[in-house]
Amino acid sequence: MFYHDKKLQYNVRVDKPNPQFARALQQAIGGIEGEIRVCLQYLFQAWNSRGPVRYRDMLLDTGTEEIAHIEMLATAVSLNLEGASSSVIDTIVGNDPIMEKIVGGGDPRHFLSGGLGALASDANGVPFNGSWVVSSGNIAADMYANVMAEATGRTLATRLYELTDDAGMKDMLSFLIARDTMHQQQWLAVLEELGNGDARNVLPIPNSFPQNLENQEFNYAFVNTNIDPAEPTVGVNRRWTHGPSLDGRSEFREVKAQPMGGEPMLGPPTPAGHAQTEQMEGAGQKS
Amino acid sequence: MFYHDKKLQYNVRVDKPNPQFARALQQAIGGIEGEIRVCLQYLFQAWNSRGPVRYRDMLLDTGTEEIAHIEMLATAVSLNLEGASSSVIDTIVGNDPIMEKIVGGGDPRHFLSGGLGALASDANGVPFNGSWVVSSGNIAADMYANVMAEATGRTLATRLYELTDDAGMKDMLSFLIARDTMHQQQWLAVLEELGNGDARNVLPIPNSFPQNLENQEFNYAFVNTNIDPAEPTVGVNRRWTHGPSLDGRSEFREVKAQPMGGEPMLGPPTPAGHAQTEQMEGAGQKS
Amino acid sequence: MFYHDKKLQYNVRVDKPNPQFARALQQAIGGIEGEIRVCLQYLFQAWNSRGPVRYRDMLLDTGTEEIAHIEMLATAVSLNLEGASSSVIDTIVGNDPIMEKIVGGGDPRHFLSGGLGALASDANGVPFNGSWVVSSGNIAADMYANVMAEATGRTLATRLYELTDDAGMKDMLSFLIARDTMHQQQWLAVLEELGNGDARNVLPIPNSFPQNLENQEFNYAFVNTNIDPAEPTVGVNRRWTHGPSLDGRSEFREVKAQPMGGEPMLGPPTPAGHAQTEQMEGAGQKS
Amino acid sequence: MFYHDKKLQYNVRVDKPNPQFARALQQAIGGIEGEIRVCLQYLFQAWNSRGPVRYRDMLLDTGTEEIAHIEMLATAVSLNLEGASSSVIDTIVGNDPIMEKIVGGGDPRHFLSGGLGALASDANGVPFNGSWVVSSGNIAADMYANVMAEATGRTLATRLYELTDDAGMKDMLSFLIARDTMHQQQWLAVLEELGNGDARNVLPIPNSFPQNLENQEFNYAFVNTNIDPAEPTVGVNRRWTHGPSLDGRSEFREVKAQPMGGEPMLGPPTPAGHAQTEQMEGAGQKS
Amino acid sequence: MFYHDKKLQYNVRVDKPNPQFARALQQAIGGIEGEIRVCLQYLFQAWNSRGPVRYRDMLLDTGTEEIAHIEMLATAVSLNLEGASSSVIDTIVGNDPIMEKIVGGGDPRHFLSGGLGALASDANGVPFNGSWVVSSGNIAADMYANVMAEATGRTLATRLYELTDDAGMKDMLSFLIARDTMHQQQWLAVLEELGNGDARNVLPIPNSFPQNLENQEFNYAFVNTNIDPAEPTVGVNRRWTHGPSLDGRSEFREVKAQPMGGEPMLGPPTPAGHAQTEQMEGAGQKS
Amino acid sequence: MFYHDKKLQYNVRVDKPNPQFARALQQAIGGIEGEIRVCLQYLFQAWNSRGPVRYRDMLLDTGTEEIAHIEMLATAVSLNLEGASSSVIDTIVGNDPIMEKIVGGGDPRHFLSGGLGALASDANGVPFNGSWVVSSGNIAADMYANVMAEATGRTLATRLYELTDDAGMKDMLSFLIARDTMHQQQWLAVLEELGNGDARNVLPIPNSFPQNLENQEFNYAFVNTNIDPAEPTVGVNRRWTHGPSLDGRSEFREVKAQPMGGEPMLGPPTPAGHAQTEQMEGAGQKS
Repeated sequence: MFYHDKKLQYNVRVDKPNPQFARALQQAIGGIEGEIRVCLQYLFQAWNSRGPVRYRDMLLDTGTEEIAHIEMLATAVSLNLEGASSSVIDTIVGNDPIMEKIVGGGDPRHFLSGGLGALASDANGVPFNGSWVVSSGNIAADMYANVMAEATGRTLATRLYELTDDAGMKDMLSFLIARDTMHQQQWLAVLEELGNGDARNVLPIPNSFPQNLENQEFNYAFVNTNIDPAEPTVGVNRRWTHGPSLDGRSEFREVKAQPMGGEPMLGPPTPAGHAQTEQMEGAGQKS
Repeated sequence: MFYHDKKLQYNVRVDKPNPQFARALQQAIGGIEGEIRVCLQYLFQAWNSRGPVRYRDMLLDTGTEEIAHIEMLATAVSLNLEGASSSVIDTIVGNDPIMEKIVGGGDPRHFLSGGLGALASDANGVPFNGSWVVSSGNIAADMYANVMAEATGRTLATRLYELTDDAGMKDMLSFLIARDTMHQQQWLAVLEELGNGDARNVLPIPNSFPQNLENQEFNYAFVNTNIDPAEPTVGVNRRWTHGPSLDGRSEFREVKAQPMGGEPMLGPPTPAGHAQTEQMEGAGQKS
Repeated sequence: MFYHDKKLQYNVRVDKPNPQFARALQQAIGGIEGEIRVCLQYLFQAWNSRGPVRYRDMLLDTGTEEIAHIEMLATAVSLNLEGASSSVIDTIVGNDPIMEKIVGGGDPRHFLSGGLGALASDANGVPFNGSWVVSSGNIAADMYANVMAEATGRTLATRLYELTDDAGMKDMLSFLIARDTMHQQQWLAVLEELGNGDARNVLPIPNSFPQNLENQEFNYAFVNTNIDPAEPTVGVNRRWTHGPSLDGRSEFREVKAQPMGGEPMLGPPTPAGHAQTEQMEGAGQKS
Repeated sequence: MFYHDKKLQYNVRVDKPNPQFARALQQAIGGIEGEIRVCLQYLFQAWNSRGPVRYRDMLLDTGTEEIAHIEMLATAVSLNLEGASSSVIDTIVGNDPIMEKIVGGGDPRHFLSGGLGALASDANGVPFNGSWVVSSGNIAADMYANVMAEATGRTLATRLYELTDDAGMKDMLSFLIARDTMHQQQWLAVLEELGNGDARNVLPIPNSFPQNLENQEFNYAFVNTNIDPAEPTVGVNRRWTHGPSLDGRSEFREVKAQPMGGEPMLGPPTPAGHAQTEQMEGAGQKS
Repeated sequence: MFYHDKKLQYNVRVDKPNPQFARALQQAIGGIEGEIRVCLQYLFQAWNSRGPVRYRDMLLDTGTEEIAHIEMLATAVSLNLEGASSSVIDTIVGNDPIMEKIVGGGDPRHFLSGGLGALASDANGVPFNGSWVVSSGNIAADMYANVMAEATGRTLATRLYELTDDAGMKDMLSFLIARDTMHQQQWLAVLEELGNGDARNVLPIPNSFPQNLENQEFNYAFVNTNIDPAEPTVGVNRRWTHGPSLDGRSEFREVKAQPMGGEPMLGPPTPAGHAQTEQMEGAGQKS
Repeated sequence: MFYHDKKLQYNVRVDKPNPQFARALQQAIGGIEGEIRVCLQYLFQAWNSRGPVRYRDMLLDTGTEEIAHIEMLATAVSLNLEGASSSVIDTIVGNDPIMEKIVGGGDPRHFLSGGLGALASDANGVPFNGSWVVSSGNIAADMYANVMAEATGRTLATRLYELTDDAGMKDMLSFLIARDTMHQQQWLAVLEELGNGDARNVLPIPNSFPQNLENQEFNYAFVNTNIDPAEPTVGVNRRWTHGPSLDGRSEFREVKAQPMGGEPMLGPPTPAGHAQTEQMEGAGQKS
């Protein structure tokens, strides 16, 4: 079963709110490359797991971590939707006229349906679709589905990184990109155990994003979210927790999950969004 | 952020596997009345929360609890799909020819796509849809959305209860029905705080299911899933943790979340499902 | 069965056409909070109704009224898409740069697929989805589903009200907001009959929108759309037609449905939209 | 705007309830060939209409009629789901083993989600999708979309006719098939006015269903649902109301809409469906 | 079975890249009026064909041609997404403020999910939906579905024609519009064979687009994509290959499919899109 | 562009028609693991390709081959829906009561919507969804998406193989399974070229299906569907056309595509399906 605390896994800070970027972030929440998909995919694979138990354990650990990523991104969406001054205009990718046109406006449902909050949808407002949750009952097919999800997911995250100049957003994405680096390797480590050999130079995908921009603490660390102190997972049978990383550039290690971010605190509701009166009065109160 | 252990919130046992019932259970997983919906709905409402912090806390607590309910139901689906003998036939609702016809066969994707595992879909195989996740930014609208979700959800659970004779399944459902009883009241308790007065006789919905068939320990208990020991939530401002229940039949109380079920252990893969060879060899191993 | 005349339930006038607002209005037509949903939801609940007949009657009355609301909003979309001069730019929410960015551009399918007409989709072009039509067979669950639909619907309508400066659009929305006020109370009145007690201060949702901006004639009036003159519904058993309103601020009353708006008359097709030649010749003819 | 009375357009009677047939009927309600689609398609085409007003009038008339068809079919679904004895088994298409296998079981959501009521979904439980509502702004493209809808719709209705031995259902379908015959011709009559010449032998589609099995009163009659007595539509410019039918086999005429069916009366809720207690007590009461 | 070469059916050239137009083109790829739909619709009708074989042949021919149309449009999307200078701004429909607003910004997923490539979605990013593929088993119903698809498809293409000033795009669309002219007639020619008489003045739909802007070589030519030289299809029984066209303005003829466009060559990946390093190094190489 | 002939890539024969199996086959046509998905995925990746041209070539070749697989499976669905005698009952997986229950009945839309023909949907009637078509612009992410598609696809095909006793169906599946074996390796061969090293024992996925049951001629052969005789693709840079296979068990080779199956010939329409009269008269004619 599952537990939580009130803090974020990693700090989420927005210096220059930007609704266009809020819309783009939705792809990483509810898009096919996004975090709801990997969260449910790893958890369903764990719940449906038949075979060596250590794979179930790993899937539960990482599936649980992904909930915290949805939380971070949802918080980032809200913070990009509130309190902007007119200086927000022009922050998408400098002076590139193509990119400015492609990114277009925001998602009107952020206001109309969400009152300046995140949605379970992609960057075009298309709802998350459960068909994307792959759990085939064949561990190798599942692992390739997971590599694919993290490969397209990391590609998406690097593109979001390119779209923003906001230092807080770049820091958050540097953490998420690092986690995708590790997650790609976890699933390939299982395939290595199952006979796939090595997986050298192709990693991490995309390999054209400078790895020194990743968060260096977390790009080769397996995060154990199990609260049971008697549940260490490092060991001979858990390739993803020790030994050289599959790309030969680092060492795998395991860390216990702990929050590095604080408790999120959104601003009061916008008057035009017509929250209940009591919400406006109570905003900012600790209880 | 989020944590887990390897046990179930409540015990899941299947005496007489039944693929027809496995299909019906999918409605409670990926259907519009199901647990993925309430899980994401409460979590998004928490993450988007603007206003008194205690509502965010409660939403996080219950959203986290719901993940454990998806886990229980997914486990129940798998156990209903494996190891049946021919005596499985006829277990749906006795001799009622209408119900036998309505329930029909199973979901072929349980085998074809899942290798005898649960899917993120409803009882007709229609995928979960993110549009069902309501988080409006207005606390009262959200609370009515939550009451509605738990009212249709509890109605669904009582119908599933009627469809099965399996003692294990009835016990699991008796727990889930009890939790829905409490969750309905939680959200109405917020509405009471916001000015709605009382909500007596209509509860719990449906009111035609004998409440003595509910699990009596959990039908008026708020489950706190926050692992922080310094995070008690009982108190004056938290109507849902103390005082008479809204329907006047019990007292609210709060309990810390802990697993009452064991670690789930599915059988080995079915040969016809063509898992990887290593899964069949490793099945049942503890690591 | 059903009948119509050629007039609108309430007048629809657009002084300053605005395609951005046309896009936003789509949420109220084909979105999860929109009028197609409540229309079909109330009608299916009526057609599936088992139990006291007066609930079926009320559901038919209000489900029929909602068709007229789709008609008003579809007309409003078309009028916002035609005949604008360049002064249309800037009409969304004054100088708020965040809102301007969030609302973004229009819906290109308004032209590409509709030739400047409304679609059965939401503000992001996501099609209306039948899964949103809740008819559970349990009257209390259904009533909470209806309160939820009207609570999120009224919240949406107040946000649309905030997005526009157009006097005609504000007048139309003031009427629709008033109807949502009444509809919330209707469903709660049923719950009161079923044992729910009262529902005071939380209403109407959102309670932060000044009620004096609502149309004062229709915010506590039940609209009877039944053409049978022998079908009065006021009476002891119909709580929603008489007595103090649930929020204590007015008296319920019943009115027979009649059109307050004229027959809608759109402009000729835009040449670039390539209607048939005969449409352009015939436009504006009365037959 | 719109009105209703409490009667059905045509009588709906089920002698031998059959949940398999209830499932099949859903295709005619919420499927792409179904009545929700044509209802919304004709109404949106009317509301978006630019060009000669008589086309808008006709679209409103027939779009309104289609609501009554959804109502009839939804009633038929409920009646097929209640009160069967074991003799219900085997009623699908005699002894044809292929058809028996194809039709399969019922839709479990009829019970789980609907409490023995109809859904806004197709025969596989796939929800109605607003993308099917075509309103292009080009009158000829729209008329072909309408012919296509009525051609696939009538084909569906004749197949449903073949699937059942129930005299009541056959009678209802004979009426609906007749209406599709007329509706195909209406839209082609517009195309004739627009220059299409004639449309002889291909009609009605499918042409392999014996026309003498259609209801003979309504297969060439245009049903005017406008309640305004000053709104006759017969006339020179309204090809679909007079003159020889396009297939040369009859004369068009116009009739004012009036209910030929009674007020539908479903049975009490099934105990296992857990309606509210008050519904069971009140069932069968007239108020 | 199927074959290909590496060239386009017709030349695709973009002089002034425009992401707004790229978004609009998506409607012709993955929208309900688009090429994926007609491609799959004609192929499924062919594969499911029961009855005279010449209809199956024709459907295979044209279904195969439509794949080449998706290819052309996908290439056009990519070319509209790359290499623009700031002069790209303002190219949508001159100075019409309404159209500029309606068309809005681009599709952010063109960059986020596609790295500047086309998607299997419509102009709002809504994915292609298989429910649009109509193959009813009744040849007349199918032919009307095909006329409808080509009627709405040609209407869409003429609107895209109006949205752009780019000479290359106008040339490509002039070819596609001509093909739609012919395809409408093919399906009506089958209906004529089946008894429908003629179909004169309504064609081509829309009839308000000047036919002299169509490509004059291909608007009445049936394209035979069968590689078997012994498979001529012209003849008495194939009305769509000879004789006067149905609109009386030309003669039908048949041509063997051959590429008129060159091999498409996209630019190198944009650095911000984070393709693999090897893609950037290898771009422009012939192998 | 694209071409076709009238023959199947491989023979499709059904000895014992079985509508349950027809339903199961739909998963391989329109399901997330199915052939429409890989067909469009490879073609879109080709059309969006930026980087070395040989990858575009390979994607075009294999994307084109996949159309022929949809054709084979659609034909197999039709043949499983027609002409069964009562002996068809019981052919699903012998006496396994679980599997019999899981597979359930057929898809009623095969008759209602298709007149005994295939649909663009999965085994539950859920329509194909364009969101499954992954083309990321990053060649490694795309290759992993393709390996995943072929891994889940081959797993599905081996499960279908287990569900049937029909010799013709087993032969067809043995061919399709062999093609999936090869396709997995093609994409991994690209990854090997890009730096991934080898991919030994994990292949083919699932590795628990006896490879001697595969068609031995086609499991390591690259099929070139390009009709240009000057377009040989074997060579140093095309790892997938020569050298030892990635799993070390065979040698890659290349063959030119040619039809091994005959022209498909379905039976006449079923009378109850109400095709047009002319279809029934003309069935079986060669023209």
